[in-house]
Amino acid sequence: MKKRHTRTVPELIAHKRDGGALSEAEIQGLIEGFTAGDVADYQMSAFAMATFLKGMTPKETAALTLAMRDSGRVVELKKAPGRYVDKHSTGGVGDKISICLAPIVAACGVRVPMVSGRGLGHTGGTLDKLEAIPGFSVEMTVKQFIAQTDRLGCALIGQTGDIAPADKRLYALRDVTGTIESIPLITASILSKKLAEGIDGLVLDVKVGKGAFMKSLDDARALAKSIVRVGKLAKKKVTAVLTTMDTPLGHAVGNAPETAEAIDVLHGRGPADVREITFALGAEMIRLAGLAKTEKEARAQMTQAIASGAAAEVMRKIIAAQGGDPDVVDDLNKLPRAKSKLAVKAPKSGFVHGIDAMEIGLTGVALGAGRTRADQDVNPAVGVMLEKKQGDRVQKGETLAYLHVDARKGTKPLLDRVAAAYQLGPRPPSVKPLVLDVIRR
Amino acid sequence: MKKRHTRTVPELIAHKRDGGALSEAEIQGLIEGFTAGDVADYQMSAFAMATFLKGMTPKETAALTLAMRDSGRVVELKKAPGRYVDKHSTGGVGDKISICLAPIVAACGVRVPMVSGRGLGHTGGTLDKLEAIPGFSVEMTVKQFIAQTDRLGCALIGQTGDIAPADKRLYALRDVTGTIESIPLITASILSKKLAEGIDGLVLDVKVGKGAFMKSLDDARALAKSIVRVGKLAKKKVTAVLTTMDTPLGHAVGNAPETAEAIDVLHGRGPADVREITFALGAEMIRLAGLAKTEKEARAQMTQAIASGAAAEVMRKIIAAQGGDPDVVDDLNKLPRAKSKLAVKAPKSGFVHGIDAMEIGLTGVALGAGRTRADQDVNPAVGVMLEKKQGDRVQKGETLAYLHVDARKGTKPLLDRVAAAYQLGPRPPSVKPLVLDVIRR
Repeated sequence: MKKRHTRTVPELIAHKRDGGALSEAEIQGLIEGFTAGDVADYQMSAFAMATFLKGMTPKETAALTLAMRDSGRVVELKKAPGRYVDKHSTGGVGDKISICLAPIVAACGVRVPMVSGRGLGHTGGTLDKLEAIPGFSVEMTVKQFIAQTDRLGCALIGQTGDIAPADKRLYALRDVTGTIESIPLITASILSKKLAEGIDGLVLDVKVGKGAFMKSLDDARALAKSIVRVGKLAKKKVTAVLTTMDTPLGHAVGNAPETAEAIDVLHGRGPADVREITFALGAEMIRLAGLAKTEKEARAQMTQAIASGAAAEVMRKIIAAQGGDPDVVDDLNKLPRAKSKLAVKAPKSGFVHGIDAMEIGLTGVALGAGRTRADQDVNPAVGVMLEKKQGDRVQKGETLAYLHVDARKGTKPLLDRVAAAYQLGPRPPSVKPLVLDVIRR
Repeated sequence: MKKRHTRTVPELIAHKRDGGALSEAEIQGLIEGFTAGDVADYQMSAFAMATFLKGMTPKETAALTLAMRDSGRVVELKKAPGRYVDKHSTGGVGDKISICLAPIVAACGVRVPMVSGRGLGHTGGTLDKLEAIPGFSVEMTVKQFIAQTDRLGCALIGQTGDIAPADKRLYALRDVTGTIESIPLITASILSKKLAEGIDGLVLDVKVGKGAFMKSLDDARALAKSIVRVGKLAKKKVTAVLTTMDTPLGHAVGNAPETAEAIDVLHGRGPADVREITFALGAEMIRLAGLAKTEKEARAQMTQAIASGAAAEVMRKIIAAQGGDPDVVDDLNKLPRAKSKLAVKAPKSGFVHGIDAMEIGLTGVALGAGRTRADQDVNPAVGVMLEKKQGDRVQKGETLAYLHVDARKGTKPLLDRVAAAYQLGPRPPSVKPLVLDVIRR
C-alpha cells in the first residue's frame, strides 16, 4: 500500500491559499497544534487570511468548529435531555434581550445555560449590563453553573478560560490581522463556544443593518445558513432569526438603563420592539426545547409566564443565587443612576426616519458605558435614553433624547452627535419589519 | 483643514485583503514597525498572505523594496560611479555561472560587488561552491568588501546580518506560511538586498522550467518585468534574462565539481551551455556598466579577457585575497575529490530528450552536496557528473552519468534515480534555446 503523504503546516496553509479543502483530520491537527503551541501564531494568522479570502466548505467549517470546541472543556448537561437551549446574538446597540428572554423562557420550562460576553466597540455586553445589578456576579465554577441551570432553569455567566481556548486565541489574532468578517471563522467561533456549553439547541439572533456587524441581508443570511448547517452537522438543533439593527433596540443604551428596560419586559411593560424580539426569539427556544408545537402556542406560554409573575420570580432567584440584590426586580431605583440628564433638542420639526445605531453606540462608549480596549472598566449608570423612536413625530425644540451623565464637562459634542444621529424627514417613514427572516435549515 | 485618518495595522492588512493599494508612507511605516518589533509576526504573515492573493501595484512593490532596503545598512560604493553591476539568479540546478562570470566581467572593467547565498532545497548555492576552494572565506567586513571590489574589480561574499534585516525576517516567515511564490514579495526580497549593496545596475537571470522556481514562461516574464520596473522606480538599471532550466546547467552538479567546471570556463573551456549563459549575462552586465554599446562588442571583450588570461588572473587574485589557494585556478586536482565514481548505465539505446533537473538536484542533496535544513553542512566533494546531455545519442549499457561518492552504501536507489531522470527517445529531440528572452524595461 502506498503511504499517504502527510501535509506539513506550510503545505496546509498553501492548500487553503490555492482554494483547496482540508480534511477533517488536517483541520483537527492544525487546531490541536495551535492549542499545543506547535503551530505558531504567524502560521495561524496566515491560515485565517487564506480562509477569509478562499472560504471553507460546510464540512471544513464543521471540522473547525468541533476542533475548537474540543480544545478545552466540554460541559455535560444531563438532567433534562433536549431541554437545554441557549440564545446568541451577533451584537447590536441597545440589545438587552438576553436579560429578559432567559428568565421568561426558563419560566416556561426551557433550561438556559447562558454564557455571555462583555461589550467591545460600539456594542454593549450582557455581562456588563448584569453587573449593573448591585452585588451580581457572573463568575462561578462549571459545577455551580450546571447545578444552578438545573435548579432555577437558568444561569448567566461569562466565558471561562477552559471553554474553547483555541477560539479565544484565534479570535485575539483575528482581531488584529483583519480576519474578523469571515463566515466560516465566525461560525466556528460562535458555535465552538456554544457547543462546549453542552446545549441541545441554539437560537441565533443575527442582527442586520447599520448598527450590526452584518450590514446586508445577504451577508446575514449566509452567516445564518452557515451556522444552522454546521449546527446540524454537529447534531444540534439551531434556528437563526434575522432581525433589524438600523436603529437602537428599545429606548435605553447603557448598562443600568438597559437592565431596567429588560426588567420592565418581565413585568409586561417595556418598549414594543424589545418585547417583540424577545417573543420571537423565545418562541424559537421553546420550540427547540420541544415544549410547544407552534409559534402561537409558545407565545401564549410566554405571555402567561409574564402575567403570572413566574418570569419575574425566576429573575429574582437568579439574581439572589448569583449574589445580587433581588429587590431590583421590583424597584428599579436600586440600580445605579447617573447624576444628571441632559436633553438633546430637535433642530427642526418632522418625522424620525432613522436613528444611527452606530453613532448612538459610540456615544455610549464615549460617555463611559462601553470600552475601546478590553481592559477598560465601564460606568454602569451612564447612557443615552431615546425619547423619540423611528416613526415618531417631533416638533422643533422638543426633546429627542437624554444623555445620562455623571459630569457635564465635555458633553456638548456628544449632544450634537446624538442630534445628528436622528434623521428627520417631512413625511412619515416606511419602517422595516423587526424580524426579517427565520432560518431553520 | 480636515485631519487625515491614519490607518492602524489591522486596517492596513484589511485594506490589502480587500484589494486596495497602500501608500508609500503606509508601507514604509509597516516595515519600520516590523523591524522595530511593533508590528507582530502574525500581522506580517497575514499581510503577506493578503499580498500573495491580492497582489501589489508597481508603486507599492517599489515602496516595499525600498523600505526593506532601508531596514538595515546601505553600502555606499563611490569610486567608479555607474560601473558597479551585480548578477542575481533565481536559482537552478548546476548553476555555477557566478563563479566564472564575475571574474570575466571584472577583467572587462565592470566592478562586481557580489553577495550570494547558500544552497537550500534542490538548488545549490554559490557560497557553498566557493568554499570548496581550500581556505576560501566568504566573510569580510563591509569596508573590506568595498575596498576589494575597487582594488580587484570583484569581491564574493555572503549576506551580512545588517543588510536588509526586514527581508531576512519576512523571508523566514514566508517560508513557513505558504507565501513564497508571490511576485511582489519575491521582487522586494531580491531587489532590497541588491539595492542595499549600493550597485548601479543588476542583471537578473530568471530561470524557467522544471528545475526552476518559475515553471512557466508567463510567470517568469511577470517576475522579470516586475523586477525591471521596480528597479527603474528605484533609479537603477536592471536587465532580466530569461533562461531555460529544464535540464541541469553544464555537466557537474555538486560543489567542487561545479567550481572546477566554472574555472574551466575562465580558461576558454567548459560546457557549451555554461559558456553561453555566462556570455549572455556578461554582455548585459558590460552594457549596463557602459563599457560596450552592443552585445557583439561586449562578447568580444569577454573573449579577449579569457584568451589573454586576464579573467583567470582576476580569479587568482580574488581567491588569494579571500584566504584561498589561488593555485586551484591552474590545478583542479587541488579541489576536494570524492573517493569513488559510480557509473549510471543507459537502460536502452536512444537520444537524450531531457534530464529532470529537479531529480538530479535532489540526488545531489541526498549525496550530501546540498541541504534540507539551513543549519546543515555540505560535503564539497560529492555530486553528479552528467556524461550525456540533452540531444546526445546513447547506446544501451553506455554510461549516462557518474555519482561522485565518499561511500558506496545506500547509493543503489540514487543510481536508479539518476537513470530514471534521463528521458530517452528513439529520435533526436527538439531542444529549446538557452536564452528565452531579454527584458530591459
